[in-house]
Amino acid sequence: MNMTLVRELYEEINALPIVDIHTHVNWKSGTARNIGEILSYHYYTELTNSAAHDGQPLPFDDPRELTRLVYPKLEYIRNTVQYDWLMTISREYLGIDAQEWEIDDNWEAIFDRSVEVMDRPGWAEELIAQADILRVFLTNQYDESLEGLDAGFYTPCLRTEPFVLWMDRTTEREGLGRFLGREVRTIEDFAAAIAKTFDKFVSHGMGYAAMSIPAGFRTGHVANDDAQRLLERAVSGSPWDAADREAWGMFAMNRICDACRAHGRPFHLMIGVSRDVYEHGVPMGQDLFSSVNSMSGYDYLFNTYPDVRFPTSVLSDTSGLELTAAAWIRHNVYPSGHWWYSNQPTDIAREIRRRMDAVPGNKTIGYYSDAYYLDFILPKFRMFKFELASALAERMERSLIHPNMEPYSFDEALLFAEDLLLNNPMDIIALD
Amino acid sequence: MNMTLVRELYEEINALPIVDIHTHVNWKSGTARNIGEILSYHYYTELTNSAAHDGQPLPFDDPRELTRLVYPKLEYIRNTVQYDWLMTISREYLGIDAQEWEIDDNWEAIFDRSVEVMDRPGWAEELIAQADILRVFLTNQYDESLEGLDAGFYTPCLRTEPFVLWMDRTTEREGLGRFLGREVRTIEDFAAAIAKTFDKFVSHGMGYAAMSIPAGFRTGHVANDDAQRLLERAVSGSPWDAADREAWGMFAMNRICDACRAHGRPFHLMIGVSRDVYEHGVPMGQDLFSSVNSMSGYDYLFNTYPDVRFPTSVLSDTSGLELTAAAWIRHNVYPSGHWWYSNQPTDIAREIRRRMDAVPGNKTIGYYSDAYYLDFILPKFRMFKFELASALAERMERSLIHPNMEPYSFDEALLFAEDLLLNNPMDIIALD
Amino acid sequence: MNMTLVRELYEEINALPIVDIHTHVNWKSGTARNIGEILSYHYYTELTNSAAHDGQPLPFDDPRELTRLVYPKLEYIRNTVQYDWLMTISREYLGIDAQEWEIDDNWEAIFDRSVEVMDRPGWAEELIAQADILRVFLTNQYDESLEGLDAGFYTPCLRTEPFVLWMDRTTEREGLGRFLGREVRTIEDFAAAIAKTFDKFVSHGMGYAAMSIPAGFRTGHVANDDAQRLLERAVSGSPWDAADREAWGMFAMNRICDACRAHGRPFHLMIGVSRDVYEHGVPMGQDLFSSVNSMSGYDYLFNTYPDVRFPTSVLSDTSGLELTAAAWIRHNVYPSGHWWYSNQPTDIAREIRRRMDAVPGNKTIGYYSDAYYLDFILPKFRMFKFELASALAERMERSLIHPNMEPYSFDEALLFAEDLLLNNPMDIIALD
Repeated sequence: MNMTLVRELYEEINALPIVDIHTHVNWKSGTARNIGEILSYHYYTELTNSAAHDGQPLPFDDPRELTRLVYPKLEYIRNTVQYDWLMTISREYLGIDAQEWEIDDNWEAIFDRSVEVMDRPGWAEELIAQADILRVFLTNQYDESLEGLDAGFYTPCLRTEPFVLWMDRTTEREGLGRFLGREVRTIEDFAAAIAKTFDKFVSHGMGYAAMSIPAGFRTGHVANDDAQRLLERAVSGSPWDAADREAWGMFAMNRICDACRAHGRPFHLMIGVSRDVYEHGVPMGQDLFSSVNSMSGYDYLFNTYPDVRFPTSVLSDTSGLELTAAAWIRHNVYPSGHWWYSNQPTDIAREIRRRMDAVPGNKTIGYYSDAYYLDFILPKFRMFKFELASALAERMERSLIHPNMEPYSFDEALLFAEDLLLNNPMDIIALD
Repeated sequence: MNMTLVRELYEEINALPIVDIHTHVNWKSGTARNIGEILSYHYYTELTNSAAHDGQPLPFDDPRELTRLVYPKLEYIRNTVQYDWLMTISREYLGIDAQEWEIDDNWEAIFDRSVEVMDRPGWAEELIAQADILRVFLTNQYDESLEGLDAGFYTPCLRTEPFVLWMDRTTEREGLGRFLGREVRTIEDFAAAIAKTFDKFVSHGMGYAAMSIPAGFRTGHVANDDAQRLLERAVSGSPWDAADREAWGMFAMNRICDACRAHGRPFHLMIGVSRDVYEHGVPMGQDLFSSVNSMSGYDYLFNTYPDVRFPTSVLSDTSGLELTAAAWIRHNVYPSGHWWYSNQPTDIAREIRRRMDAVPGNKTIGYYSDAYYLDFILPKFRMFKFELASALAERMERSLIHPNMEPYSFDEALLFAEDLLLNNPMDIIALD
Repeated sequence: MNMTLVRELYEEINALPIVDIHTHVNWKSGTARNIGEILSYHYYTELTNSAAHDGQPLPFDDPRELTRLVYPKLEYIRNTVQYDWLMTISREYLGIDAQEWEIDDNWEAIFDRSVEVMDRPGWAEELIAQADILRVFLTNQYDESLEGLDAGFYTPCLRTEPFVLWMDRTTEREGLGRFLGREVRTIEDFAAAIAKTFDKFVSHGMGYAAMSIPAGFRTGHVANDDAQRLLERAVSGSPWDAADREAWGMFAMNRICDACRAHGRPFHLMIGVSRDVYEHGVPMGQDLFSSVNSMSGYDYLFNTYPDVRFPTSVLSDTSGLELTAAAWIRHNVYPSGHWWYSNQPTDIAREIRRRMDAVPGNKTIGYYSDAYYLDFILPKFRMFKFELASALAERMERSLIHPNMEPYSFDEALLFAEDLLLNNPMDIIALD
């Protein structure tokens, strides 16, 4: 690897502002208020739980105490990229060097200094300016209040799991009924709740609908009458079996797509999570994935809604080439970022190259942070931008001697990076 | 990567003539007659359809008009290796530089100049000489006329999909009956049709039988009586269900293997395609694959026909190590090239290294082009040869410091390349 | 790749003594007595059988004759890493250069010289000293005599396949009954046999229980009554169907875990082998794997035995990221080495990087040899150590320009290597 070239490319790519098309940021607060909130991010709690399990629940309502408990276990995860994110936050935002994290019992000094920076007025704006963040997409519950949201910076996106996965739960149906203003007893009620949701989101500058989808999920046609019977069964309190659940999932996905179509909004699919499989895990640290999961389950959806755009992420490495191939021929499938367990250098590097070599250049959404606090956007984007710079440097070098290529220039490389990071996300999500 | 070494290796490897063991070339024409035919290759129509879908069917019978329609969308796929193939064809055969393709509305000038070159008498021979192509294997329908085929250059190979996958279709059975000279009503008729097909192909210098096989296909024993009942059911017009189809597939594969055994011909397996899954795709651009597909479905076939050689390609990256492992221990499985969605640098590079490290050196067939026109053979082989040169350069460099290796010399590297590209294909397919 | 740095790192890493946590070494002999025994290792017999199959059974009881038969086929596998292991053994232990292996008919001279070295008194001790092997873990049958085993060097580990997979076989139950001292007719008998086995193994310094597990295996709860009925059915001679076999497997795995818990011993899982699928293979060369196999089948086990440590290997590349993710969040899953078909540079390199980037540094067991003779430990560890040195060199170089990293020093890299190769194995297996 030509390190000088990688660094030069990285620096130019890093000078681009950030559009982050998928996060879990709380728009009312934005940034963390102390290092304890940073450490409460599931990556730190799960990795330290994994490295040095003690079975003690963490005090998520007491960030100082959480810091005290997590700090001594951090030494076991210093090799990880997630620790590197933490060090970037520490260095860049707090001015605390990595060496200070290696001092025994230094947690309290770090915590206190973090509060000085993070809890001061205007800190969120400072951080946004420092990281040069242009726009942040959110993940929002249908009944969450969006009043006061700054649509010039934040773009709300709708989590659709309640509609698709949980309609057999009484509390979920009741919640949806409250939102709708009447009980959800018919599929017309259900469609009306979706319509009301979209109306509300669109009025706040909706980005897209989104769903993190279990491994093995299938899409297909389900008749209204069948769906109505399923809903009645749920309302009457009889539980759904696996086939019922699959049928409702198909039906509800289609209704979400109808609404996406009606409002010209994309549907962001995040394929392949296995929820709640690790019983002894920390909160948000109990999910894994299955390597056995084919994108073929989505054929129906992609075919039936040719006018809906589907930015798509896959959790498993085994679906990576499937996603490249889908985006290569399907006009409405767009590879989107590198998700969760695939969001580390090895798998990012492979997928960048596949997409660069075989997906039309206007179709890939380079990256999103999936962050819970704005603070994480910078280090995560840096990780991706470095892999992107490496892939582009490699392409430049190969092009000089490749018999099928003309020299790939520095400027071409940067334009490609700009497409992945800025132009494609904005064009594909197509905000007004 | 040591670019000088890669280039030196590439140049020597590139000096080898080409034996292309799998194509879809039409031997009566061979080359394209204009750039519109080149652009009608599904890679260009599918990638541009994916990049800028407009729902308009393409005029495949009017290459000039097709060029006009596809040309403006090519800008979206300039990053792809498929576009690099096009530029190589343009530069090397037509003398048209890549820059000319970036001029708006320049399609007509390019088209006209392409006709000047490609439609002139003797062009196919010129191109064959320029690309140094020694032998081209074809993919032929059982009832296709092979009269006049130059068996010194073209080797016919039999597509077996009609026998194995489509015998429940009346038109297919009728077609086979016409070829046989009597209706196909019994499994004896069916075997006779296969025998007649092999006799015909062998008389024209048959290479091998071939089949592109759906994901999930299974092989196994099916008794003659059961197969006879299936055939009768089909003849009587009752549709086959999935189990019937699987059983017939098993039976028919075995009959093809019987014929391969009888004539000493290999059976080239191309494993894992999902046909017709993208409804809005261009012709030939509607197929994908499933990442969930194991080679274990072929255990029966490999075990039952130890004296039949099975060159094997897999479409999914997830089957890549399975194929390496099968070729590592099974004496009659030969890894063959890099197919379709796996035919891009990332996946080629990984599989080359696996095969180089763990498959006996006499067993790997390096590459085939899968081309529809002879024109594509050169750029596709170049792509492979560059990855091969890179892998060999890496091995040479590593060998200088590897504690288990002696220095791997330039000459050894070239001999290995020659085995992959020339000796192994000829030995494994074993033409007289 | 910075070759100088790789070499420097390799040399330091190579200076570490070897702890080999999984082998099939016969502790009564240890080393091979001649090159014929080396060549009887299934890698050589299977690769040469694959390269040049002749259907002749090999004379495993006549190493000289086996050498004569295998020798001329070795030329076909000179490209493989397995051949590199052989050359290392030849050069380092026998003083026979690789060139001598390329001389026709030179097998007898090589054989005779190998006997001079390998059959002399004290050779095993010499080899152990030369390779700097500190400790070797074994794979032992429950009823194998361990009397006389040098527990300061050899650590016995229990194969659990007979308990979990074969209890429907009369001969297996009878064997277990002989070991127990009474027939195995009840699940209490079965548990008593496990208890007696663990008592015996623990008294000889037991390492862990181990099992190589078929693809598709599932874990779960099975009630005692159901297991008792299954056992009675087996005792009465009625065969088990697939569901019975799965249920017994679940039950028996849980009983092994009970014993692991009771004695504080880990359970080493080796996931995903497909036994006896290649009929024409040499002994030990008939097994493959399936790419379709998810670690989700082990969720129950990992959750139910949070206090049992599970070092885990996967055979398929498609399970590699699953294993990384499991070790990342699950406190009791430890990635262990690189197994069999995944034990070659391509797949080792990818998994090292994933584990280095996302698994807590105290959780990965770097490598084991899986060797049948002590002779193979050195070349196999060298192969791994070279890939590790390459990955560490890459990390050092990247760290110099990576925006999230501080320079990763040579010393840090060596400490990480030492953790993988020495500290983690000893801590995770936790011998007294």
